[in-house]
Amino acid sequence: MAAQLKKQYQCLVLFCLYFCLCVESLRPGFPYRKHHHAREADNTGYNYKTAYFEQKIDHFGFANDDTYKQRYLVADQYWDKNGGPIFFYTGNEGDIAWFCNNTGFMWELAPKLNALLVFAEHRYYGTSLPYGPDAVKDPKKLQYLTSEQALADFAVLIQELKANVPGAQTSKVIAFGGSYGGMLAAWLRIKYPNVVYGSLAASAPIWSFIGQIPCDAQLQVVTNSFKRESLTCVKNIRKSWGIINTMGATDSGRARLSTTFDLCALLNSTADTEALKSWLVEIMFNLAMVDYPYPASFLEPLPGWPIKAVCAPLSTEVVDEVALIEALSKAVKVYYNYTGQAKCLNVNENAVGSLGDELWGYQACTEMVMPSCSNGVTDMFEPAPYNFSQISDQCYKQFKVRPRKSWVITQYLGKSLSAASNIIFSNGLLDPWSSGGVLKSISPSLTAFVIPNGAHHVDLRSSNPGDTPDITKTRLAEEYIIHKKWIEGDNL
Amino acid sequence: MAAQLKKQYQCLVLFCLYFCLCVESLRPGFPYRKHHHAREADNTGYNYKTAYFEQKIDHFGFANDDTYKQRYLVADQYWDKNGGPIFFYTGNEGDIAWFCNNTGFMWELAPKLNALLVFAEHRYYGTSLPYGPDAVKDPKKLQYLTSEQALADFAVLIQELKANVPGAQTSKVIAFGGSYGGMLAAWLRIKYPNVVYGSLAASAPIWSFIGQIPCDAQLQVVTNSFKRESLTCVKNIRKSWGIINTMGATDSGRARLSTTFDLCALLNSTADTEALKSWLVEIMFNLAMVDYPYPASFLEPLPGWPIKAVCAPLSTEVVDEVALIEALSKAVKVYYNYTGQAKCLNVNENAVGSLGDELWGYQACTEMVMPSCSNGVTDMFEPAPYNFSQISDQCYKQFKVRPRKSWVITQYLGKSLSAASNIIFSNGLLDPWSSGGVLKSISPSLTAFVIPNGAHHVDLRSSNPGDTPDITKTRLAEEYIIHKKWIEGDNL
Repeated sequence: MAAQLKKQYQCLVLFCLYFCLCVESLRPGFPYRKHHHAREADNTGYNYKTAYFEQKIDHFGFANDDTYKQRYLVADQYWDKNGGPIFFYTGNEGDIAWFCNNTGFMWELAPKLNALLVFAEHRYYGTSLPYGPDAVKDPKKLQYLTSEQALADFAVLIQELKANVPGAQTSKVIAFGGSYGGMLAAWLRIKYPNVVYGSLAASAPIWSFIGQIPCDAQLQVVTNSFKRESLTCVKNIRKSWGIINTMGATDSGRARLSTTFDLCALLNSTADTEALKSWLVEIMFNLAMVDYPYPASFLEPLPGWPIKAVCAPLSTEVVDEVALIEALSKAVKVYYNYTGQAKCLNVNENAVGSLGDELWGYQACTEMVMPSCSNGVTDMFEPAPYNFSQISDQCYKQFKVRPRKSWVITQYLGKSLSAASNIIFSNGLLDPWSSGGVLKSISPSLTAFVIPNGAHHVDLRSSNPGDTPDITKTRLAEEYIIHKKWIEGDNL
Repeated sequence: MAAQLKKQYQCLVLFCLYFCLCVESLRPGFPYRKHHHAREADNTGYNYKTAYFEQKIDHFGFANDDTYKQRYLVADQYWDKNGGPIFFYTGNEGDIAWFCNNTGFMWELAPKLNALLVFAEHRYYGTSLPYGPDAVKDPKKLQYLTSEQALADFAVLIQELKANVPGAQTSKVIAFGGSYGGMLAAWLRIKYPNVVYGSLAASAPIWSFIGQIPCDAQLQVVTNSFKRESLTCVKNIRKSWGIINTMGATDSGRARLSTTFDLCALLNSTADTEALKSWLVEIMFNLAMVDYPYPASFLEPLPGWPIKAVCAPLSTEVVDEVALIEALSKAVKVYYNYTGQAKCLNVNENAVGSLGDELWGYQACTEMVMPSCSNGVTDMFEPAPYNFSQISDQCYKQFKVRPRKSWVITQYLGKSLSAASNIIFSNGLLDPWSSGGVLKSISPSLTAFVIPNGAHHVDLRSSNPGDTPDITKTRLAEEYIIHKKWIEGDNL
């Protein structure tokens, strides 16, 4: 029961996994990750300045007049100071420098369109910390960690920049964001169309909330992304859960599993076996998120089309149970040990505990109620229902808050988006989060782009010789709308 | 200095005056008002049921899970339960029953368009009291009194009604509101277009905030509304301030003023003289708000075109100073003693102190920063500058909060409304609040109606044989848009 709950909880926090690199790089004992993080920055070499803006901690109430310093990064070397546009990245749940360095599309567009680049950090992440790093321990101090407050930060910061930066008064502001940042970019245009003229919301699962899609939709996409490479791979994975359960029920079996997967710590209990399975589900979920056509280091350093590589050891039918688990372990190591530097694999590596995870956990326990489950029939996972009240109790235990099921849907228009305008929704179909994305255009100014060969917000990444034509075409179409319809278009 | 501050503060709270009837009727010692209030209800005889909905006190944070019971009034006798529209009044700063009984236009439209009528009370007013009637004494308990929280209440209530009232699932919801309620109606459509399909925002001064209009704009309209009846009346009023100052500087002069105005309490100091002047400014402001063409009892029982009646004793040039003050006192009594029932006039009648005033005072001290001043040159008042920092200090002293100058402008789009849709802005040009209203259509779906002979949201009142053609025409045009464009139109 506890293991299942933990798994569901992890499904909720999966969404934030891809920023853990930065957060975890701050912790001792992760030299591999530290190295990885540094290399990403070296690769990009983008040139920006760091600035801070004093924000109200509570925009929606006046009893608390405390402030915090919000970090934002600015690159003005391409900017036409006579009204050139402002490209504004709406920071996600992590260190803004990392998003800045991983959003090459903005850096490629800026010199073409003479834009000012601004990357604004999300409150409570990175170094933008109301009440400091210990706020996470106090529900009263954490209460200002909401998307509404974050959007208000962005809106106030933009108004401030437009008022005070010489040349910015008439600049059109275009918001960019990916994943949760993409949701924020869309919501910023929806709620503050006075502040941003248009938004590119890449891989923004704005329809992933309760009742909007079936809870098994995400893991169905993961299954499909694996199926695309090998139907046998999917069959083998589905078969493996029962074998792990059987082996994981005995001491000798758990020892065998521990050795096969090169685990850093021996599996000691059936709870540990559950943790192993959760970890495997996470890996598969992540693989679908980062199934880019070229070698990349987004979550982990990986080859191009990593699912293909992962499925290679699993693409012939394996009858022998031990052999199947061995094949699965080879597959997993493609994800976690592609560079061959890890001595052992840590099942708890991405589990709840690091600061960033906890903060996203709080958001998942309040507003970001995005259910996940698996049916075991059309997907390749064990059946695992979604249990809202269990999660709610867990949230109360951890943070003294309970999630509100439909608040975000009421607040951000749900599926009734047609009164909004000037938003591009892009989704890669390999990405599990595409299941909650806007996949069909809603109106002439609410445009959906679907990228069949695309993983998680691939369009925000720098262009790459390995890009498939649908990826390249999408970036061009996005550039066209941003340039011709928004920057050069009439004021809306 | 203090008197001037008080005057400015009263200018801020003037906006809420017209609901004081209900609030003050709850206080002992106001039989006249009580009687008045009861008669209004008798006159209308509208038939509705009272209901309550449990709302979160804090929609924008999760640390506080407290709730309160929001009152709303429902009339379903005209409703076509197969998807007939819902007309939803967004309650102002007062008892919702009073708004319900003073919004005859909705009651006239409902049977024609088979609508369900819902009048929702604004949190902290009437009987919808988070933390009870004593919340006003505690800044921590008052902190949830914001327009954002009120709009969230309305949105959540509407979603709840649509989900649970049989027949309401496909109903289009149209918001109606006047004055601050009109601002809320417009903002509800702007921020929650998923919840309301269109809004009639009557006399909603959404552009009255700092920097949006000159602070003397309101009192300029008051002056114009008087000038329309008699230029000499305006000249006499302008002249009277100096006379009051001279008389008010001595004991004998103050005694004379007290007698002339039939004041209940003798003027004892120059501060009292300042209070008298503030009271007179308020009366003139209110007269411009309620300058309806037929006898009405909105703020006070008054004849038709009350400014004409008020100006009658002042429409010939009065040279003698005492005679001028006597004429002014006759004028004032048209406003405060039209029915001849008052034994004396109470200068502090509308001053800060009653519960409703204090609550609106809090809103004026936080979000609703609508400056007021007079120049003494183009208007008929004494020059009185607007001093934000003084008001801010006063607010801190009273409520432990400070107003945020530009938050409301950022939050509710300011003058950049063009991305919004389906809002009717109506304004009567006699009404001082029209100075901050939207007087020109912004787009085909953001329509402005200007009513040259109209006072404060006259179009929301029941039709009356005394209505001027521009008033009648505006109601017809509003009905056309609501009926043909919104209810029968395509989904937007």
